[in-house]
Amino acid sequence: MARLFGVGVGPGDPELMTVKARRVIASSDVIAYFAARASRGNGFGVIESLLTSDHEVIRFTYPLTTEAVAHADYEETIARFYDACAATLAVALTAGRDVAVVCEGDPFFYGSYMYIHQRLATRFATEVVPGVTSFSAAAAAAGRPLVALNETLSVISGVLAPDELRRALAGADAAVIMKVGRNLAAVRAAVKESGRADGALYVERASLEDERIMALLETDDVDAPYFSLVLVPGVRVATR
Amino acid sequence: MARLFGVGVGPGDPELMTVKARRVIASSDVIAYFAARASRGNGFGVIESLLTSDHEVIRFTYPLTTEAVAHADYEETIARFYDACAATLAVALTAGRDVAVVCEGDPFFYGSYMYIHQRLATRFATEVVPGVTSFSAAAAAAGRPLVALNETLSVISGVLAPDELRRALAGADAAVIMKVGRNLAAVRAAVKESGRADGALYVERASLEDERIMALLETDDVDAPYFSLVLVPGVRVATR
Repeated sequence: MARLFGVGVGPGDPELMTVKARRVIASSDVIAYFAARASRGNGFGVIESLLTSDHEVIRFTYPLTTEAVAHADYEETIARFYDACAATLAVALTAGRDVAVVCEGDPFFYGSYMYIHQRLATRFATEVVPGVTSFSAAAAAAGRPLVALNETLSVISGVLAPDELRRALAGADAAVIMKVGRNLAAVRAAVKESGRADGALYVERASLEDERIMALLETDDVDAPYFSLVLVPGVRVATR
Repeated sequence: MARLFGVGVGPGDPELMTVKARRVIASSDVIAYFAARASRGNGFGVIESLLTSDHEVIRFTYPLTTEAVAHADYEETIARFYDACAATLAVALTAGRDVAVVCEGDPFFYGSYMYIHQRLATRFATEVVPGVTSFSAAAAAAGRPLVALNETLSVISGVLAPDELRRALAGADAAVIMKVGRNLAAVRAAVKESGRADGALYVERASLEDERIMALLETDDVDAPYFSLVLVPGVRVATR
């Protein structure tokens, strides 16, 4: 029976793929990935060198930008999009072909694969291959321990409204703010208000050749891409 | 110049090591790992098959159990322990030998490597190889998406006092409670009080052959090991 794989391919450096992710991609018949309209797809970039002429490759192009995640129109449009993606993959699975859906980072940690999983896991055999998250790669690249002992780590979306950002930061010993992008100024203001800006770091494209690491307080002129994040290391971790 | 590597080897299944972790371990001269007194070391189990007679292998045995993480005596004892570990590795590094310190999961996410890093990163070149965390492996094994869209995920230590556990859970859309072990009853009570017990899962030894996944509400008779965790998936993620 054909299987549907959700494959976490890690933060960007192909060497940060797991051995299992490489094996599953090499042995699957169909490789599907998501990409924004003007993009080649970050996940695709990670796995491109593994593709052969035996693979069928399917690109799913998001119908909207990934930054507009709040209002009802978006949710309706994106739900229909995932319905269509799932229907396409169901055809391949029904024909007995193994399908691997490529995800940056980890599939069940903010990954688009979960919407395919929800639509197909009751009909087909599924297996999820976990991957290295962008925040682990960012802390590694910065050489900065993130969270220790009995500290709490909060992973927060930078898309949140300022008061929600402040509330989420207030309860955390350590924090990762994902999806910073054009919310960078609001994120920086919220971290400052929380009194934690001194040790905070801005990290862009962690593990890729053009990665960039800066003190958050020095990012006034930065034009942050969507895949950037802010690390607020825990207080129990010495920062030297 | 010799280098110190902190190598995340993932949650337990050797196939969930990254390609980079395998390469760094294969090419390092000295492989160091931590283990509890009565244990072979979970990290060691992951990398054992990669070792050759060219590797020098150093085992660091924790002086105390890993569950006693609060009081001052413990902190003093463990600080002296890490001082001694760092001194041992500094000898090898000074002799020009590359050292890889093996960490379960990800080194800067509650990993013991960070204490070595803090002691040696100012004197030697260091590189951290991020790894797949146990919570990603647990969600993958359970087939349960963890966090989506603009939800907040809180990673919480099960060692916390009941009121701290409740407070940490109250602010989170999704949660992972690590280091459950003998705190399982308190963790279960706190999740129940938060009104989130219905979708919550208990996961033990994720990605290993003897992994175990159960509804949290059915764990009354479970004798949880230290490396077990509880997943509270986000509400925006459908749970089917």
